[in-house]
Amino acid sequence: MPLLDGLFYSPSVEPFFSDSASIQFLLDFESALARAESKAGVIPAAAASVISANCRAELLDLPALAAAVPASANLAIPLVKQLTQLVARQNAGAARFVHWGATSQDAIDTALILQLRSASTVILSDLDSLCDSLAAIADKHRATPIVARTLLQQALPTSFGFIVAGWLDALLRHRDRLLSFAERAFVLQFGGAVGTLAALGVHGLSVAKHLAAELSLPLPPAPWHSHRDRIAEIASTFGLCAATLNKIAHDLALHMQTEIAELAEPHPPGRGGSSTMPHKQNPVSCAAILAATNRVPGLVTTIFTMQSQEHQRGLGSWHAEWTTLPEIVRLTAGALHHLAALAPNLQINTARMCENLELTHGLIYAEAISMTLAEKIGRVAAHEKIAAACQLAISSRRHLRDVLASQSELSSADLDRLFDPRNYLGSSSALIDAILLNARSRGKSHQRSAKG
Amino acid sequence: MPLLDGLFYSPSVEPFFSDSASIQFLLDFESALARAESKAGVIPAAAASVISANCRAELLDLPALAAAVPASANLAIPLVKQLTQLVARQNAGAARFVHWGATSQDAIDTALILQLRSASTVILSDLDSLCDSLAAIADKHRATPIVARTLLQQALPTSFGFIVAGWLDALLRHRDRLLSFAERAFVLQFGGAVGTLAALGVHGLSVAKHLAAELSLPLPPAPWHSHRDRIAEIASTFGLCAATLNKIAHDLALHMQTEIAELAEPHPPGRGGSSTMPHKQNPVSCAAILAATNRVPGLVTTIFTMQSQEHQRGLGSWHAEWTTLPEIVRLTAGALHHLAALAPNLQINTARMCENLELTHGLIYAEAISMTLAEKIGRVAAHEKIAAACQLAISSRRHLRDVLASQSELSSADLDRLFDPRNYLGSSSALIDAILLNARSRGKSHQRSAKG
Amino acid sequence: MPLLDGLFYSPSVEPFFSDSASIQFLLDFESALARAESKAGVIPAAAASVISANCRAELLDLPALAAAVPASANLAIPLVKQLTQLVARQNAGAARFVHWGATSQDAIDTALILQLRSASTVILSDLDSLCDSLAAIADKHRATPIVARTLLQQALPTSFGFIVAGWLDALLRHRDRLLSFAERAFVLQFGGAVGTLAALGVHGLSVAKHLAAELSLPLPPAPWHSHRDRIAEIASTFGLCAATLNKIAHDLALHMQTEIAELAEPHPPGRGGSSTMPHKQNPVSCAAILAATNRVPGLVTTIFTMQSQEHQRGLGSWHAEWTTLPEIVRLTAGALHHLAALAPNLQINTARMCENLELTHGLIYAEAISMTLAEKIGRVAAHEKIAAACQLAISSRRHLRDVLASQSELSSADLDRLFDPRNYLGSSSALIDAILLNARSRGKSHQRSAKG
Amino acid sequence: MPLLDGLFYSPSVEPFFSDSASIQFLLDFESALARAESKAGVIPAAAASVISANCRAELLDLPALAAAVPASANLAIPLVKQLTQLVARQNAGAARFVHWGATSQDAIDTALILQLRSASTVILSDLDSLCDSLAAIADKHRATPIVARTLLQQALPTSFGFIVAGWLDALLRHRDRLLSFAERAFVLQFGGAVGTLAALGVHGLSVAKHLAAELSLPLPPAPWHSHRDRIAEIASTFGLCAATLNKIAHDLALHMQTEIAELAEPHPPGRGGSSTMPHKQNPVSCAAILAATNRVPGLVTTIFTMQSQEHQRGLGSWHAEWTTLPEIVRLTAGALHHLAALAPNLQINTARMCENLELTHGLIYAEAISMTLAEKIGRVAAHEKIAAACQLAISSRRHLRDVLASQSELSSADLDRLFDPRNYLGSSSALIDAILLNARSRGKSHQRSAKG
Repeated sequence: MPLLDGLFYSPSVEPFFSDSASIQFLLDFESALARAESKAGVIPAAAASVISANCRAELLDLPALAAAVPASANLAIPLVKQLTQLVARQNAGAARFVHWGATSQDAIDTALILQLRSASTVILSDLDSLCDSLAAIADKHRATPIVARTLLQQALPTSFGFIVAGWLDALLRHRDRLLSFAERAFVLQFGGAVGTLAALGVHGLSVAKHLAAELSLPLPPAPWHSHRDRIAEIASTFGLCAATLNKIAHDLALHMQTEIAELAEPHPPGRGGSSTMPHKQNPVSCAAILAATNRVPGLVTTIFTMQSQEHQRGLGSWHAEWTTLPEIVRLTAGALHHLAALAPNLQINTARMCENLELTHGLIYAEAISMTLAEKIGRVAAHEKIAAACQLAISSRRHLRDVLASQSELSSADLDRLFDPRNYLGSSSALIDAILLNARSRGKSHQRSAKG
Repeated sequence: MPLLDGLFYSPSVEPFFSDSASIQFLLDFESALARAESKAGVIPAAAASVISANCRAELLDLPALAAAVPASANLAIPLVKQLTQLVARQNAGAARFVHWGATSQDAIDTALILQLRSASTVILSDLDSLCDSLAAIADKHRATPIVARTLLQQALPTSFGFIVAGWLDALLRHRDRLLSFAERAFVLQFGGAVGTLAALGVHGLSVAKHLAAELSLPLPPAPWHSHRDRIAEIASTFGLCAATLNKIAHDLALHMQTEIAELAEPHPPGRGGSSTMPHKQNPVSCAAILAATNRVPGLVTTIFTMQSQEHQRGLGSWHAEWTTLPEIVRLTAGALHHLAALAPNLQINTARMCENLELTHGLIYAEAISMTLAEKIGRVAAHEKIAAACQLAISSRRHLRDVLASQSELSSADLDRLFDPRNYLGSSSALIDAILLNARSRGKSHQRSAKG
Repeated sequence: MPLLDGLFYSPSVEPFFSDSASIQFLLDFESALARAESKAGVIPAAAASVISANCRAELLDLPALAAAVPASANLAIPLVKQLTQLVARQNAGAARFVHWGATSQDAIDTALILQLRSASTVILSDLDSLCDSLAAIADKHRATPIVARTLLQQALPTSFGFIVAGWLDALLRHRDRLLSFAERAFVLQFGGAVGTLAALGVHGLSVAKHLAAELSLPLPPAPWHSHRDRIAEIASTFGLCAATLNKIAHDLALHMQTEIAELAEPHPPGRGGSSTMPHKQNPVSCAAILAATNRVPGLVTTIFTMQSQEHQRGLGSWHAEWTTLPEIVRLTAGALHHLAALAPNLQINTARMCENLELTHGLIYAEAISMTLAEKIGRVAAHEKIAAACQLAISSRRHLRDVLASQSELSSADLDRLFDPRNYLGSSSALIDAILLNARSRGKSHQRSAKG
Repeated sequence: MPLLDGLFYSPSVEPFFSDSASIQFLLDFESALARAESKAGVIPAAAASVISANCRAELLDLPALAAAVPASANLAIPLVKQLTQLVARQNAGAARFVHWGATSQDAIDTALILQLRSASTVILSDLDSLCDSLAAIADKHRATPIVARTLLQQALPTSFGFIVAGWLDALLRHRDRLLSFAERAFVLQFGGAVGTLAALGVHGLSVAKHLAAELSLPLPPAPWHSHRDRIAEIASTFGLCAATLNKIAHDLALHMQTEIAELAEPHPPGRGGSSTMPHKQNPVSCAAILAATNRVPGLVTTIFTMQSQEHQRGLGSWHAEWTTLPEIVRLTAGALHHLAALAPNLQINTARMCENLELTHGLIYAEAISMTLAEKIGRVAAHEKIAAACQLAISSRRHLRDVLASQSELSSADLDRLFDPRNYLGSSSALIDAILLNARSRGKSHQRSAKG
């Protein structure tokens, strides 16, 4: 339902996936093929010229294409027919050279690669924007105390900046993956009917090299029609990134729970309301990010199960990739778009973070106290003694500090120090620095890779 | 990519899933709600009348709806706003009663159920048509010998009718499931904001009953906003059916392999050709059925993993169902459409079936011979003796019958009988009868259920 | 890692899945087959007798079986060999009739069905125990106020009993599914090598009927070697149930968050502690339930994608079911075991439920107030007015009641009533009754089905 | 069912996954931690020494460990208790320093990484062995004609060596992935309770560095307790490899079909037989490879859906990884083991490959003829003319060459050349060379990486 597109997709990435854009990527292949074959001396330059000139999506009859798909189970076959007719109107001699020596999968796979490569550029840009926002928060809140939670229970103090730096650290890994896998996965597909390029005689490899150059795509050692590991690597790389976006939105939503309220989405008028409850301020950006990324793992599964394609070209398995892989990329882009928009506007309630640190009446400092005590009486004895004090604090509804005040091993000054969350942040600041350093050097490496 | 819709979907089912149809199902809920509340004495009859009159999709501004979705993460909220404005133009007093006491999930879930119920009717009809075609083939070819294959190796003779009856038997089970699960799964969703119907005061259950009657939907014991087992049962029931369609198309394609050639798709001009190989007659219907059904299990996975929705309404998990569940139904319908179209036109090459029975030079009769011999010398001894004869036949490239002719236990008449595939069909004809009986009684039960 | 079995599985169900139990179910098939063939007059009664007498797992050499599996890709083939040798030692004549006319898949599939049927009985019993516990809580807490939460935000008051009744309602549906699907799915598999029962000549159907009777299994219309919809239905039915267990544990864990603390697991000494934090009381039962059920959807996916089995018996797809399907059942049983143990001991903090209702300073009563006001000034105007009051209450950090006290439409008595959660439970008590009625009638129907 | 282990797993990899090996990897962490803390000056050298000395799996009571798992939902907690008791018997002072400053997830995650790294070494070795076998076949059969098949239909001639080189090319990519991802994914986990290393005061990073060095694991920028992208990358990298193994086994099995018979598994006595059909020679190695790899995508799905782990440590999601991730690696290793054993013994029937090239009576040369003709009369005209000739050949049951002999554009010498498969292998030999070059340079780089 296109009505829901705004929830799931990114407005900056969607244009690459429109019908006409999809057709144009196919035509870009056909156009580049003609030019490559001209350069390789396989077809006349004049033929290449008129073919290229007609490779414009707006010249094609898209409804007729759609209507022809079921009879060929394939978009390239009717597209080549239409293109041939277009070219023939201008130059009958040139028309014979349309799609020369290629197979429909060469066009469809390469067009998909071109499409995803274009989308990836925008996605990396959104990812960089998100990383910048998170880096700023991590730095600013590196000493803002907040409770860390494990198994959905309050555990120990940490800093909000360190939590955010953890998100950033993961996103930087995804950035690396998206940059590095591109070299392996975004490559030319060109092998002719069965991968041998036999229809091009002795010119096969020459055409392949020219074609790769025309499209600025690496030329792989061999065609890969029925070896889909590159496709599955694309799916899993975006799927990994989507899963981290899901984790971040999940955490945000948990922090936004009414009872925790450490974070909130901005709620300008008309945003996040309920159809029936006037007070509701729903975390709609989180809902959108979760909705989009929740749909990704199942689609990745489809791509993984479709990798076993028969012989030199699969039946039905290849076809099942066609909408599935773009959907993975579009949903990841959609979630990234929503999160990149939310991050700089995230409402951070540091006062509430402090209040929540007090909810357990000191219990979250138990480890700190136990470790200090352990230096005096051993880890196990300390653990047991403090666990007992915790039980007493709970059962008597007293603050743990009050319970411990009557115990002799720890001085009042010790206790002052031990019950201050800022004194139990460990190495978090140094770890934040390490992550921020990576984030900053990324900026440079990105410029390098953009140049290189 | 809508360009590929013809490959994946059914033209008779797609209209239920258009944007305007989807909106209309939402409006059908709002309209029925107003009438139900009027009957329950909760809102004035005049208000219900004007609300109902405005519940027409063509009156709404769909692009505005789409644009409003991200701010509410929800289609019902902006729809209710537009509807309220429409009603207000005619009757300001009535406008206050639009969506009275309902929550957006009531509308969205119920509209989905109405949509899927409508689609199911068409799907069942296509399924009946397919069953009829298969029943005819099973009956006609009940004694047509063909080799049965296990682990992709020729095993024993069977009849082509029995193979087809096996497909039919599975489809009849799916038919039963689709009919019986409907009672459990196609039910009203109505609970108000948190399932208590509190906004309707003492009238909650009365409105619920009237609403169920208005929509001809069963009223479940309680609302089920965050209990999605019904949704997952819909997904898995269609998913099961899709998997059988996949199995049938997979089998068809294996029978259609150039080297087996027992079956073929019809190839009128322009169908199944290759962009480069003039002789190719690709099984494009099989490709389409496999393509559609290959995409289903991953989508079912999404629905299963989304069942764990938090508290009284989930965040992001419910939203992830919205396009996923319809997609499962649409793809199943698409595959069914293609198979129902192919079945009556399937080209059946009985001569080739006979030729293939001879490919192993009699080896596929080894079990029959072994069982006959076992009556004389025991199962193990017979198995070993015939296995040795098989080895000899293979190594000496002789027909198994020739090898056995020189062995004394079996007479020439025995061998004549044993090497005739028609004498080794076992209980297959009786089993076909049992399945065809089910197929015929289905017809009646379907008429009954259509009346009932 | 068997070390973790206690986390994932149920001690009462595991015995059905041990190696020796698995072997015994295979032997039960072989034993019943011999008796059935004797009754059908196919093999001598004496042979059947000695075969049956040797069908005891403790007589077999299990390590030798395991070692023989790779050469046959199959457990039944070496098992039949061992059994034949055992029988031959006592009666060489009888040995020839071991496994007479059956194929290995007949034995393996039927043994699986017997195994799962046995496990299901225990699982249904655990499910009944869980339902009883939940019914008691639902009844006891039908008027215990708690806040309902949607999209992880506080929404409106509800009762804790109603929340629990919702869990119960879903489990009752699963109970129905588990009972009703058993008739469709727990059936005999018996078709011989390719489903025709040809090796049994004219006696095929007679043996099949006797065999079904011996094993108390329904006899389906036809063998189903490569039609796995029954297998997938078993997988999805347990998968559905597992998903609801996951949802319940997920909800429990959310209620148990330190900041919400409305529920807790019991924490006897040594349970739920952390290796490093003395105060930690981790929800370990929830962890176990979630861990087990989180693993199920992926396994269900495997079963769904394996349904497309080639021709009369699949290659590698059937084999992939062998450990996957039992794992689904075992994990569901494990989660059920943990939840059935937790439910009667769940610590319910009603005081904290009341405190949490006050966290929003009255905002959660906004809908109730809005609906009351709507009767006076219309739904939209009321919604907007109360939304504005909510904003004022938030920004001025006042209680909503204080904000509204200065507004004229609502009297002080109105406000008293409107801010009492017990007055906004709507139809929840009646809905609880409907669910409890189903729960009680279940008891009876279960007895009936046990008799029938 | 351990009885089936021989089907699914690799005998050389399984020892890393036994209970005692799994425990030993945990103890290796605890031992290295003690040594690292001693080097960092956090605990006494004597304590580290006695702790390390007791970190031997055979000293632990494994049944007691297993029994303690449900109460802690965790293996490390009871393990640390047992280890502490062991140490205390020898040195009460040292016992207090067991597990000092670490959390259970530090131990469990790092032990998993150590386990998978060990397994990977063996897996890479099996993969190299398989690549060597395939490289030899590709080279030997580079000019062996065979028909290429697309959409399960005969398409054009190719060479068997080129098909095998395609498999090899994909496996070389997996080899690269397995080597390169290891740097990203096989890293230390060490953060203490919530990732801050706070329990180690100022010594956190120093201990982390020493610990990484002790275990020869890279030290990542920060702990990653609830960021599981590394785990998911491990899952997907092995999953990708498994999918290619599945594709190869799938292709092998298709080539082994009775009707095609171009390849066969070796069938020594007792291998690949049927329980009932004496002649059957089932492709049991293919069955095993397919069975193992068919189970992988569903498990990868579980890992992907489990990535969204709450806050600083997830509830139930982390736990769901514990058996799932090792299972993915074990199944991949199992499939690789079976394929590496089969490859050098694959029976290659080149005569049958030639026969199958003739099955279409020349139709598979249609593209070659069409391309040659196209140089004379244009691509479209040639395509149409040859398509018509194909139709005539089919309908008149004549060889395409006979049909074309009566047409004037092509000479008899042309036809001789065009109907010889060896003249239509295109660039396949050069492509094989490129792949073999990669295969050989891999050998060197592997030696380098083994040294480096």
